[in-house]
Amino acid sequence: MTHAPSTPTPSTGWHWWRHAKLATMSDEPGSPAWGWCPQGDLLTHGDRIVWVGASEQAEAALQAHLPADERNLLGSTDLHGLLVTPGLIDAHTHLVYGGLRANEFEMRLKGATYEEIARAGGGIRSTVTATRAATEDELVASALGRARTLVADGVTTMEIKSGYGLSFEHEARCLRAARRVGDTLGLTVRVTGLAAHALPPEFDGRADAYIDAICDWLPRWHADGLLDAVDGFCENIGFSAAQMERVFRAAQALGLPVKLHAEQLSDQGGAALAARFNALSADHLEYLSDAGIAAMAAAGTVAMLLPGAYYYLRETKLPPIAALRAAGVPMAIATDHNPGTSPTLSLSLMLNMACTLFRLTPEEALAGATRHAATALGLGASHGQLRAGFRADFALWEVGHPNELAYRFGDRACRGTVIGGRRFSS
Amino acid sequence: MTHAPSTPTPSTGWHWWRHAKLATMSDEPGSPAWGWCPQGDLLTHGDRIVWVGASEQAEAALQAHLPADERNLLGSTDLHGLLVTPGLIDAHTHLVYGGLRANEFEMRLKGATYEEIARAGGGIRSTVTATRAATEDELVASALGRARTLVADGVTTMEIKSGYGLSFEHEARCLRAARRVGDTLGLTVRVTGLAAHALPPEFDGRADAYIDAICDWLPRWHADGLLDAVDGFCENIGFSAAQMERVFRAAQALGLPVKLHAEQLSDQGGAALAARFNALSADHLEYLSDAGIAAMAAAGTVAMLLPGAYYYLRETKLPPIAALRAAGVPMAIATDHNPGTSPTLSLSLMLNMACTLFRLTPEEALAGATRHAATALGLGASHGQLRAGFRADFALWEVGHPNELAYRFGDRACRGTVIGGRRFSS
Ligand SMILES: [Zn+2]
Ligand SMILES: [Zn+2]
Repeated sequence: MTHAPSTPTPSTGWHWWRHAKLATMSDEPGSPAWGWCPQGDLLTHGDRIVWVGASEQAEAALQAHLPADERNLLGSTDLHGLLVTPGLIDAHTHLVYGGLRANEFEMRLKGATYEEIARAGGGIRSTVTATRAATEDELVASALGRARTLVADGVTTMEIKSGYGLSFEHEARCLRAARRVGDTLGLTVRVTGLAAHALPPEFDGRADAYIDAICDWLPRWHADGLLDAVDGFCENIGFSAAQMERVFRAAQALGLPVKLHAEQLSDQGGAALAARFNALSADHLEYLSDAGIAAMAAAGTVAMLLPGAYYYLRETKLPPIAALRAAGVPMAIATDHNPGTSPTLSLSLMLNMACTLFRLTPEEALAGATRHAATALGLGASHGQLRAGFRADFALWEVGHPNELAYRFGDRACRGTVIGGRRFSS
Repeated sequence: MTHAPSTPTPSTGWHWWRHAKLATMSDEPGSPAWGWCPQGDLLTHGDRIVWVGASEQAEAALQAHLPADERNLLGSTDLHGLLVTPGLIDAHTHLVYGGLRANEFEMRLKGATYEEIARAGGGIRSTVTATRAATEDELVASALGRARTLVADGVTTMEIKSGYGLSFEHEARCLRAARRVGDTLGLTVRVTGLAAHALPPEFDGRADAYIDAICDWLPRWHADGLLDAVDGFCENIGFSAAQMERVFRAAQALGLPVKLHAEQLSDQGGAALAARFNALSADHLEYLSDAGIAAMAAAGTVAMLLPGAYYYLRETKLPPIAALRAAGVPMAIATDHNPGTSPTLSLSLMLNMACTLFRLTPEEALAGATRHAATALGLGASHGQLRAGFRADFALWEVGHPNELAYRFGDRACRGTVIGGRRFSS
């Protein structure tokens, strides 16, 4: 059973969004850089964009698209020169979990050793313990707070992974919580099963048995409509490529797309494995090889860059940006929000980090958080561009030019979002 | 002539702030780490804190402090468990300028050379040109927007430098604009004259003549009440220590405290020079020597750490944190907001960067943005601590523990500020 993207109560009428600057981020042939239109308007009908273009052509577009007898139903909003971009898409988050890891962060900075932190209950297992102890309502409440912070920063679509439950029932609870975040806020949420995130204590020393269990659980979660995709952590300290391949086979048998945390800390050949399964994305990629790049390019797998984790872990090995660019691999940007290695809730900050740390251009960074992020969620035909037929999800910014979104860091330039044709209010 | 810190229309009455978690950041003997009080209240009178302590002692404190006949005038706010910290103090900003440098940021990432950027009008001179072209009202308006963004992130006191006018009249305009930001928002703003920031085009090749001019201008700005302190940029690409010494002598003659951009890109002996003049702070300090540290420790000069510029410039040489700590030099943290090398408007993000990049502890970072930042502005006896007799400036946060303020990055946990005893609303 498949689950349609969560949808809000859509706007049913026609709406004319006037006096904006537009960065459509459209990849239609002939689009200028940024899809830039310094004086533009949009026409939406329900939750869809009907027309986007220069303000001076808006009247003609209304004539062409709007039935005469619905003209009196046309709503209108003056955007007073705000910049409109596609709503940002955070395509890699671990938003559902219990507890925090602030104490661990403090202990480490005060000089505690890894062992001392583990003894004090730190590390990913502390998050698993706290997540298992939380009720579904508690998981929803904490994730909702985090999701609202992302939306206040311009996000209108997000991916949410499980991965801190690590048992059949606890993972299901996290997946349900992720669905409820989308339903509550009325925005598109894609839910990813990440049971293959870490080995739960019940399976200590029995990683292969845990992989067996995951392959057994996947069809049951899927039957309950809880999965849009399947993910794993392919690493020395995670699961091997051979183990991940078994999980991917089980996903493939269900018709579910896959993605992979790959080459973050070492080269495990994870990206090539992911590409072999036509993965939506391979994520992190600091240690990605040329062979991995070639495989991704051939498969159309998106490179999901996560500069927040790179920054927070003080990583020094950069992902091979120039080679990815040369190979034509689409590059997406996400927060990787999680309590242990990337506790950030600002995708606009990631635009700056992608430029400052990874040397993407500002336009590449914004494409990475819109158009390419949509592709990485399998939503490239409907999300991530301001374009006729696409979803009416957009973000409003008080800036002069879209390059300012990446130039600043720690700014609050977002003046609101439109989700499914409606102004979002939490 | 001296100018008192800008003050808002102060609250005149008594107010009881109830049901908070407190991190007083007090350095009174016997204060626990963070000045932590998990269930605390504050009593304020006008713009001053009268009492801070455990909630269970609040009634007794009211009895002790509040005249019986004013009891019916006592206002009260239930803070519902929010964390209260001293209002953050951003003690190093260049908030007043015209234009932006987003195009330059984009050009550089697209591979433009330094010369191409200069030919296209980039670099600090582009900011000088844009600043000179702006009216005072325009400078105030753009700086006010930036100041409001800082306040939304918990800042209640800030320093604002001139430094993009670089002539008598243009610098005066920037200094007046900085004063007006404080007066308009009703918060403490300390204004610093930074004419010795860069060489203006009129003085090309005549740096010593420009220093002469600055020494001539300082008394005139000071007579108009425009200066709280004097600063300079001591660097190969700025001014020499000998040149800065002449500026400092002129400041000293006026009784004005000094501070210095020192040892950011190379060791110029700037910190030792600053210490010799009992500077409030020496700022940046990546290339600070042991001799500089010893001089600062002896003089009580604050080390002003600016992790935003370190991050944005992809600097790899760290300031000597361990040695500063060992020498007992107080370490402050600021945004260094400026359009060229640190376009950030979040001091809470700097808390994280100070920990992640510079390895401060979370408590050191918060002390650096409160108590030690106050000292760096000469306000250590009245600002930066929640403590009887101190100004009623505080920030409200939706977090469980103050260590979360540095743990997250790009968060929006600030739920408001109280400035001079009143809830701030922009
Ligand atoms: Zn992840
Ligand atoms: Zn500076």
